[in-house]
Amino acid sequence: MVSPVDLRSDTVTRPDERMRSAMATAEVGDDVLDVDPTMRRLEERAADLLGVAAALWVPTGCMGNTIALMTHIQRGDSFLAVRDAHVINNELGTPAWLAGGMPQALPELTPEAVRAATLTAGPYYSMRTSLLCVENTHNAGGGTVLSPEAHARLVAVAKELGLAVHLDGARVWNAAVATGVSPAELTAGVDTVQACLSKGLGAPMGSVVGGSADFVAEARRIRKMLGGGVRQGGVVAAAGLVALERIEDLAVDHENARVLADGLAELGWRVRAPETNIVLAEAPEMTVPAALERLTELKVLAGPMAGLVRFVTHRDVGKADVDEVLNRMKGLAWAGSSSTTARS
Amino acid sequence: MVSPVDLRSDTVTRPDERMRSAMATAEVGDDVLDVDPTMRRLEERAADLLGVAAALWVPTGCMGNTIALMTHIQRGDSFLAVRDAHVINNELGTPAWLAGGMPQALPELTPEAVRAATLTAGPYYSMRTSLLCVENTHNAGGGTVLSPEAHARLVAVAKELGLAVHLDGARVWNAAVATGVSPAELTAGVDTVQACLSKGLGAPMGSVVGGSADFVAEARRIRKMLGGGVRQGGVVAAAGLVALERIEDLAVDHENARVLADGLAELGWRVRAPETNIVLAEAPEMTVPAALERLTELKVLAGPMAGLVRFVTHRDVGKADVDEVLNRMKGLAWAGSSSTTARS
Amino acid sequence: MVSPVDLRSDTVTRPDERMRSAMATAEVGDDVLDVDPTMRRLEERAADLLGVAAALWVPTGCMGNTIALMTHIQRGDSFLAVRDAHVINNELGTPAWLAGGMPQALPELTPEAVRAATLTAGPYYSMRTSLLCVENTHNAGGGTVLSPEAHARLVAVAKELGLAVHLDGARVWNAAVATGVSPAELTAGVDTVQACLSKGLGAPMGSVVGGSADFVAEARRIRKMLGGGVRQGGVVAAAGLVALERIEDLAVDHENARVLADGLAELGWRVRAPETNIVLAEAPEMTVPAALERLTELKVLAGPMAGLVRFVTHRDVGKADVDEVLNRMKGLAWAGSSSTTARS
Amino acid sequence: MVSPVDLRSDTVTRPDERMRSAMATAEVGDDVLDVDPTMRRLEERAADLLGVAAALWVPTGCMGNTIALMTHIQRGDSFLAVRDAHVINNELGTPAWLAGGMPQALPELTPEAVRAATLTAGPYYSMRTSLLCVENTHNAGGGTVLSPEAHARLVAVAKELGLAVHLDGARVWNAAVATGVSPAELTAGVDTVQACLSKGLGAPMGSVVGGSADFVAEARRIRKMLGGGVRQGGVVAAAGLVALERIEDLAVDHENARVLADGLAELGWRVRAPETNIVLAEAPEMTVPAALERLTELKVLAGPMAGLVRFVTHRDVGKADVDEVLNRMKGLAWAGSSSTTARS
Repeated sequence: MVSPVDLRSDTVTRPDERMRSAMATAEVGDDVLDVDPTMRRLEERAADLLGVAAALWVPTGCMGNTIALMTHIQRGDSFLAVRDAHVINNELGTPAWLAGGMPQALPELTPEAVRAATLTAGPYYSMRTSLLCVENTHNAGGGTVLSPEAHARLVAVAKELGLAVHLDGARVWNAAVATGVSPAELTAGVDTVQACLSKGLGAPMGSVVGGSADFVAEARRIRKMLGGGVRQGGVVAAAGLVALERIEDLAVDHENARVLADGLAELGWRVRAPETNIVLAEAPEMTVPAALERLTELKVLAGPMAGLVRFVTHRDVGKADVDEVLNRMKGLAWAGSSSTTARS
Repeated sequence: MVSPVDLRSDTVTRPDERMRSAMATAEVGDDVLDVDPTMRRLEERAADLLGVAAALWVPTGCMGNTIALMTHIQRGDSFLAVRDAHVINNELGTPAWLAGGMPQALPELTPEAVRAATLTAGPYYSMRTSLLCVENTHNAGGGTVLSPEAHARLVAVAKELGLAVHLDGARVWNAAVATGVSPAELTAGVDTVQACLSKGLGAPMGSVVGGSADFVAEARRIRKMLGGGVRQGGVVAAAGLVALERIEDLAVDHENARVLADGLAELGWRVRAPETNIVLAEAPEMTVPAALERLTELKVLAGPMAGLVRFVTHRDVGKADVDEVLNRMKGLAWAGSSSTTARS
Repeated sequence: MVSPVDLRSDTVTRPDERMRSAMATAEVGDDVLDVDPTMRRLEERAADLLGVAAALWVPTGCMGNTIALMTHIQRGDSFLAVRDAHVINNELGTPAWLAGGMPQALPELTPEAVRAATLTAGPYYSMRTSLLCVENTHNAGGGTVLSPEAHARLVAVAKELGLAVHLDGARVWNAAVATGVSPAELTAGVDTVQACLSKGLGAPMGSVVGGSADFVAEARRIRKMLGGGVRQGGVVAAAGLVALERIEDLAVDHENARVLADGLAELGWRVRAPETNIVLAEAPEMTVPAALERLTELKVLAGPMAGLVRFVTHRDVGKADVDEVLNRMKGLAWAGSSSTTARS
Repeated sequence: MVSPVDLRSDTVTRPDERMRSAMATAEVGDDVLDVDPTMRRLEERAADLLGVAAALWVPTGCMGNTIALMTHIQRGDSFLAVRDAHVINNELGTPAWLAGGMPQALPELTPEAVRAATLTAGPYYSMRTSLLCVENTHNAGGGTVLSPEAHARLVAVAKELGLAVHLDGARVWNAAVATGVSPAELTAGVDTVQACLSKGLGAPMGSVVGGSADFVAEARRIRKMLGGGVRQGGVVAAAGLVALERIEDLAVDHENARVLADGLAELGWRVRAPETNIVLAEAPEMTVPAALERLTELKVLAGPMAGLVRFVTHRDVGKADVDEVLNRMKGLAWAGSSSTTARS
C-alpha cells in the first residue's frame, strides 16, 4: 500500500517523541497572573537568537504579525510590502481592518522601490507611510532569501525615510541556515520580528514576536485583547524550546528541496532553483489543478502558489520520501523537455 | 517552611499527570489545512455536552467571547449585559472596539431589565439592541448561578424581542454541577456559548465556543483572523478531553468554598454565601488592599473583586489546604463580629 | 386653519433672512487646499467664545464628538459619561466602534461617581479609563445645567485622576445664558469641547469642536477621514457667525419653556421645572405614545425622551405659539391633579 | 497688477450669484427628523440623472465613497481598484481601516486584470474579493474617460465574478460630456455611484451617493454615524440643484484644457492629450517642484500629480485666463523641443 507524502507545507510537521516528552514534563505557571517559567525561558531564548531585547509567545504567526502592525500603524498610515507578501495576501485583511493600514504593494522589495513609494511629506489630508514589512524567507517568491546585505540596505533606506521595519520572519530560521549567518544578522535594525516555531522547526503551535522591551509590554497587552493570553502555556513553550535547538536541521530540508527540484526538472518540469525548503514548479503541459490532481492520485500532496505548484520539504519528509515521490512520478507524461529554469 | 496556597483564581490550575500523558500521546494533524483528529474529538464532545450543533476550540475564553460577539453585532448595535459582566469589565473593551457594540449595562440581569433596555423600534438614526449576553456562573457576582428556570426566562424574553443570546459560560460547568442539571440545560435556547477548559477543569489552555454549524464555520474564519488558528492543536485538545471528564469533580471545589466561607465568617469576615467555587468576603475593619497584604504575608493568595476579597477554590487546592488557610488566619485581628452575610 | 407648532427639537430652527443674506454674500475659498476666510472667522470667533485655543467647523455635532473621542481614546480604554448621555445613547455606538472606547455609564455625574468608576491602576490586562465626557446642558436630563462650580469640581477630579475631559456642549450656549456666565467659564479646564450652531442658535447646519492648536490640527485630519472636509464651507460658516451673535436670545426660549411648563402643570401634567429650553413632562393618566398622538391631533409636535414627553422651545416658536399650544390643550382630559413637580 | 489663475483643482470653484440666490431662498426642513424638501428634490434629480433608484446627499465625495464601501465590504474581503485610484491613494486609508477592505491595486483597470485578481473560491481562511471600484473620469490618470463600452465590459466581468461595483464618479459628469452620453449610461450596472457637486459643477460643497432604495436607506444610517446627517441642508442642496443644470457647461472646461495642452506643447512641455478638464504635463528640463515654483512666481497655480504637473480647468477660469497663463509662460526657458505627447 502506498502511503502519502505530504509536501503541502512545513506546517504539517508533528511533534516527535522528544518534543512531546518536553511538553509532558514542562514546568508551568499562570502566564497571565504571573509568569509561566517555561514560557519565560522560551521567550528569552528566542529573543537571544533573534537579537532583540525581548520576545513574546503567540499562538500563531498571524497574531504575531497583527500585533506588530497594530503597534506601528495609525489611522491614515500606509505600509509597504512586496505585492505577494503574506501580510497582504494571506492574513484575511487584518493589516487593513484590524491594524488599520492601507497597504502599498511593491512589485519588488528594493531600496529604490521603498524610496519611491514612501509618502513622507504632504499636507494634512495626505496618507503617510509608517512601516516597511519585510518577509524572509519570502513564501510566495518560493522560499527566497533576503541576504544580510540586501536586508541591511532595506533597513537603511527605511530608517532614513523614518519608517519602522517589521520582519515577517516566519521562516527566518531557513534564511539564516541558507545564508550561513545567525538569525540575529537577518533581524539587524528591525523594530519588530515575528518568527515561527511550528513550521520547519516542528513545534505543534506557536510563534514569537520580538522587539524592544516597550514593544513587548505593549504586545502583551494586545495579545490579551486578541485572545492569545493563554494560562499554562509552558506545555507548548516546551515544544518551542526543543524546536529552537533544531534550527540547523533545516539544512536537510533545503538539501531535500534541491534533490526534489533536480528530479522534477529531469521529469520535464520547469523549476525555480530553490533557495530553501520551497520548490515552485510547473508541469509545462498541464494546468496547476490538473497537475495537483495527478499528484494526489500518486498520494503526493502539494499545493498551488503564485500560479505554480508548491512543494515544501520539512522534517517529517526524508531523502527517501523525496526519492519515493520522484519514483512515483516517473513514467507519467508531465512534459517533454528537461531543464532547470533558474529563478528570474 | 510555609508553602503558599493560591486562591487567586481557578485559572492557576496545572495539568496533572494524566492530562500530560494524554497530551504526550495525542494524535495530531494540521488543523488549518485538514482537521486535527484530537481537536475534532474535543469539539464534538464539547458540542454534545453543551447541547449545541457544533463547537470550536479557541486559545482563550476571551477569543471565544469576541468571536461570538463579532457574529452577533453590527455597527450601530448595542448589546445587553449585567453591569459587572466579564465582557464589559474584563476584556479590554473588545466588545466595543473589535466587535463594534455599544454596551448597555444592566444593574441586574432580569427579564424586566432586558425588556426595559432593549431598543427595538425607532427611526433610522437610532441604535438597535441585537444581543443579550448572559454570564453563568457570574464571576463578579461571586460565582453566582443562573438557574435553568431563570435562564429560560431570560432567553424567552430575548427571543420575543428579537435578540440573539450569547452565554459567557466560562464556568458553566460549575453552574451545572451546582444546580444538578446538565450543561446543555443551561444553554437551552442560546445562539452561542463559550465554555472554558482551563479554569476549574484544569486544562492548561483553551476554551470552546459553540452554536449552529453555520456559526462555527464563520467562527473558524474569524478565529483565523484573530490569530487563533493553530496547527497541531491536538496536543492541547487532548488536555481538554481529559478536562471534560472531570466536570463532576467541581463539586469538591464548591464544598471547599463553603468550608472556607464558614471559616471566614467565624473569623469575623462578612461573607457572601458561595453558590459555587468563588467566595467574596471582607474583613470589616480592614480595607481590601490591607487584607490582601496581610493574607500575602500568610502566603494565602487572593485577589480583589467588586470591592471585596475574592477567594477561588479549584482542583489544586484540597480540603486540607482550606483548613490550613483558616488556621493561618486564626488569632489575627480581622474584625470583632462573626456572622455569615447572606448574598443580597 | 390650524398651523402646527413644532416643539420636537431646537434642531428644526430655520435660517432667517439675515442669516440667509449672510450666506448669500459670504466670502469663500477652498477650505481644504487653502483656508476659507469665512470659515476661519467663524472658527476664531467660536474659539474665543469657548475659551479654547482653536476650533474647527464640522457638519454635525456628532462628528465633533466623534473626532474628540477619537483623539482621547485608545484601544483598551474606557470613558465615563452619565448613563443617558448623548454619546452613549444617541450616536449609533460610534464612541465604541469608531472611537474605540468602552463606555462606563454613571448613574449620576458627580465627582464621587467619577472617582469610584475610574480605572487607573491595574495589571497590563486591565482596562484603563482615559476620558470623562460631560454634557452641558444635559439633553436627556431635561436640558439641565451643570453650574460653573459643579463643572469645575468634575474637571478637578478628572485632572487629578489623569483623565482627559471632553465637553459635549451642543447646548453649552443655553447653559451659559441660564447661569449668566460666559460659555468660556463652562469650558474651563476641558481638553476639548463641541458646541452646536444649528440648534437654538438657528444655523442650518454645523457645529464647532475646539481645544488646543495641536488638537485642532489632528481634528482637521480626522475630519477629512470621516468625510467632513468641505470646500467652500464659508456659505454655511456665515450662518454660524450670525448664530454666534444670538446667544443671548436663548433667554427667550428659556422663558417660553417656563411658561409652557407652568401651563402644562395647570393642565394637570407632571412637569420637571425647566432649567433651559427643554420641558420634560407627562400627562399622568396617559401613556407617552398616547399623549404624543393626541398632541399631534392638536398639531402640537413633541417627542418622547427618557420615558416622558419632551417639548423644546426655540427661536422659531414665540410666546404666542406657546400660548396657542396651551390653548389647544385646554379642555381636554389629561389628568385631574395640578402641580409642578420639581426635578428630583 | 497680475492676478493669480488657480488651476490646482476644480474644487476651487465658487458659487456664483445664481447659486447663492438659490441658496438664499431655498425651502428647508429638518432633514433628520423629517425631510428637507430641497434636499429631496436634489436627491431625486441626482438619482434620475445617474440612473439609480435613489440618491443621498453627503457633505463630501470622500464620505460618499466611504459609505458605499462600508456597505459592500466585510471583514476578510478585498476590493479591486486601479493602482492610483482616489480610494487607494487619497482617502487617508478609510477603505482599509473604516470600510475594512484590503485593496488589491491593479496596474490597469481591464476585464482581464479584474478576472486575474479576483479571489473567488478558496478555503475558509482565504480572503475573498467582494468589490470592484471604478473611477470615471480617472483623476490620477489625467482625467481620462472610461467609455460606455469599456465600462460595460468591466461591469460584465464583475457581475460574472460575483463582485459588487462601485463607481467613484466624482467627475462622472465630465466623462458623460466628453463621450456625449448621459451620466446614466456610465453608471449602467453599478451597485452604487458617488458623484460630486462641488468640483466642475461649482457647488460650494456636497456630493451624492446613489444606488438601490435599500442601499440609500442603509447609507442614510451610515451617514448619520459618520457625522454627515445635517439638518436644514436645503441651503446647500439648492446650490446642488443649480449645479446639476450646468453639466453641459463642462464642455467649455474641456475645450480650455485642450487649448492649454496645445499651448504647453508649443512651449516645449511634454503633454498628455487631455480627455476632459485635467492636463498632466512636464517641463522636460525641470523637476516638478521647480516647475511649480516658477509657475507660482507667474501666479499660475498648479499642483503635482503622478510625477507630473497637473492643471485643472474649471468654470472660474475662462478662455482668456488660459491665454493669459500661456502668455505669462512664454519667453521663459521650459525646454527646447515642442510636441504633444499622446497618452500612452
